[in-house]
Amino acid sequence: MSHSACHNVLDPVVGERLDGPQDIARLAVAVGSASLDLLQADHAWSGIEIALWDLLGRARDAPVHDLLGEGPPVPRTPYASSLFGDEPHDTWAKARAVAGAGYRAAKFGWGPYGLGTGERGLATDADHVMAARDGLGPDAALLVDAGTVWGSDVDAAAARLPALEDAGVTWLEEPFASGALDAYAALARRCARVRLAAGEGAHTPWQARHLVDHGGLGFVQVDTGRIGGIGPAAAVARHARRRGVRFVNHTFTTHLALSASLQPYAASPEDTLCEYPVEQSELARAATLTRLDRGRDGLVRVPDAPGLGVSPDLAALRPYLVDVEITVAGRTLYRTPELVP
Amino acid sequence: MSHSACHNVLDPVVGERLDGPQDIARLAVAVGSASLDLLQADHAWSGIEIALWDLLGRARDAPVHDLLGEGPPVPRTPYASSLFGDEPHDTWAKARAVAGAGYRAAKFGWGPYGLGTGERGLATDADHVMAARDGLGPDAALLVDAGTVWGSDVDAAAARLPALEDAGVTWLEEPFASGALDAYAALARRCARVRLAAGEGAHTPWQARHLVDHGGLGFVQVDTGRIGGIGPAAAVARHARRRGVRFVNHTFTTHLALSASLQPYAASPEDTLCEYPVEQSELARAATLTRLDRGRDGLVRVPDAPGLGVSPDLAALRPYLVDVEITVAGRTLYRTPELVP
Repeated sequence: MSHSACHNVLDPVVGERLDGPQDIARLAVAVGSASLDLLQADHAWSGIEIALWDLLGRARDAPVHDLLGEGPPVPRTPYASSLFGDEPHDTWAKARAVAGAGYRAAKFGWGPYGLGTGERGLATDADHVMAARDGLGPDAALLVDAGTVWGSDVDAAAARLPALEDAGVTWLEEPFASGALDAYAALARRCARVRLAAGEGAHTPWQARHLVDHGGLGFVQVDTGRIGGIGPAAAVARHARRRGVRFVNHTFTTHLALSASLQPYAASPEDTLCEYPVEQSELARAATLTRLDRGRDGLVRVPDAPGLGVSPDLAALRPYLVDVEITVAGRTLYRTPELVP
Repeated sequence: MSHSACHNVLDPVVGERLDGPQDIARLAVAVGSASLDLLQADHAWSGIEIALWDLLGRARDAPVHDLLGEGPPVPRTPYASSLFGDEPHDTWAKARAVAGAGYRAAKFGWGPYGLGTGERGLATDADHVMAARDGLGPDAALLVDAGTVWGSDVDAAAARLPALEDAGVTWLEEPFASGALDAYAALARRCARVRLAAGEGAHTPWQARHLVDHGGLGFVQVDTGRIGGIGPAAAVARHARRRGVRFVNHTFTTHLALSASLQPYAASPEDTLCEYPVEQSELARAATLTRLDRGRDGLVRVPDAPGLGVSPDLAALRPYLVDVEITVAGRTLYRTPELVP
């Protein structure tokens, strides 16, 4: 071991007691201290932390959002995420399809958006955004995701603002790299009604706080599976609320991850939107026996069942299991475990 | 692969051309983009980046600091790092020994410091700091390292300031976790002559910039082997200079790492101090054939030889080599390589 802050995430966890939420918080502190210099520790710990909440909820016969003690859950308006089309007409067709599927919020991102330069690049981007608005109709929330395309170039991002304002875009997501706090703050000062969104690049609660405190965000997007789990994500949600910033989940892949991502702000009435995985991979669909389908009103509800309320399908996952083995000086440190239902 | 930002750090590097510093910068961007979501990527890339500078310097017959193009190097005043003693008298004895060894700057940290509570804890901490000052004599620079002991508790840290001011301490290092920017800024406002130092917890250039821009630091301490290498560290040094913040290297272990840590600010006249590994482990000593010993004037100079100017001792390292093997689905992804001098 090179130094004392490089312990395996499991070291402070295995053999400990789990009697209540305070034990999860205590283990989080212990893991943070023991693995301070292992940057992927919050990410690895997230999976354990979420499993501990699920376990505690099942043992107590209570949904996780009850254990968080923040009141009855509020349904969320799911937004559908799509890539921009190759041409504005393709974007329009995708937006029509999303609206036809009953979504009242949609996000378009990446693809050609933001890559063009000069007047022509600006015009193409504006055409895509207006095509998305036309396809969705005037009342749906339209979100645009730039995927950090402008690095930290405030002027390049600001040149797109007039078209985004004209199209009534709710948020512009990740114009910049997550660390470019100054660029975020400078762009926020140039926005009228459009708000900035970011946070999926926050790998610790500190980084999410920095975006809230110094980035001029309107929305902070937190990935429960990345930032250290449900407890740290709930702390970010409370911090954002105090600063007048809206919280929204970041999630993709499975409905197990979706449920975990909804818990930290389940009871918050102001945070109306949620990300919702629309185009799931075969693996993501196979992973759970339970699904969080939209209700007849089009809204998504956090499950009322104990824990996260989602059962994994271990039999369906088995074909995806990959054998991994790590040996150090002849000693096996890791070997893919058996899946035991 | 889960998604496109999780590539091995080597993928964008192997097979590329290295004709000048601009190629190193180009590869840094490529690695950053390909492995955006692998948090340890900057750390891993640091080793490669530093090796590329060394290689380029040897090929061009020029020291790395010349390639950086920032003028002739300036000698540094090394500071010796020690733990506080168990009792103030032990701290005094350590300080006497450091002064006797010719050091004109010394850092004391960790041990019992900051752990006590109430009036008694404050008094003990004050006694340790004053004992260090007495042992060093009135003219040496005295630095105190709190090792993040107060988390984000500004009052706990501020209660120690009067004793630090009385003892003429140059900097108080890491009173808080690296992410606690607000706490740093609040404490900085309560300092008179003492300055705050932090930065070894910055694992990306962004994090170091955040400490400079929002933490009210007097000194930013950058570890070249962690933050992405010499180029990113030099960019932080330039940014700090623009903000009136002093740059200082963070390093421990080998003199190879020491040389790399000195390059980014080699030419800066205002940044007078350098961290200097005094109590090296057997492995750290064995690792290099070259040493950066203090001159007769007590100062440390960055080598004038090509590259980093430090030769590793591969034969001496061989006994420390550990066999590691990682296999995935029967395919060996990694196996400890042979050391070929």
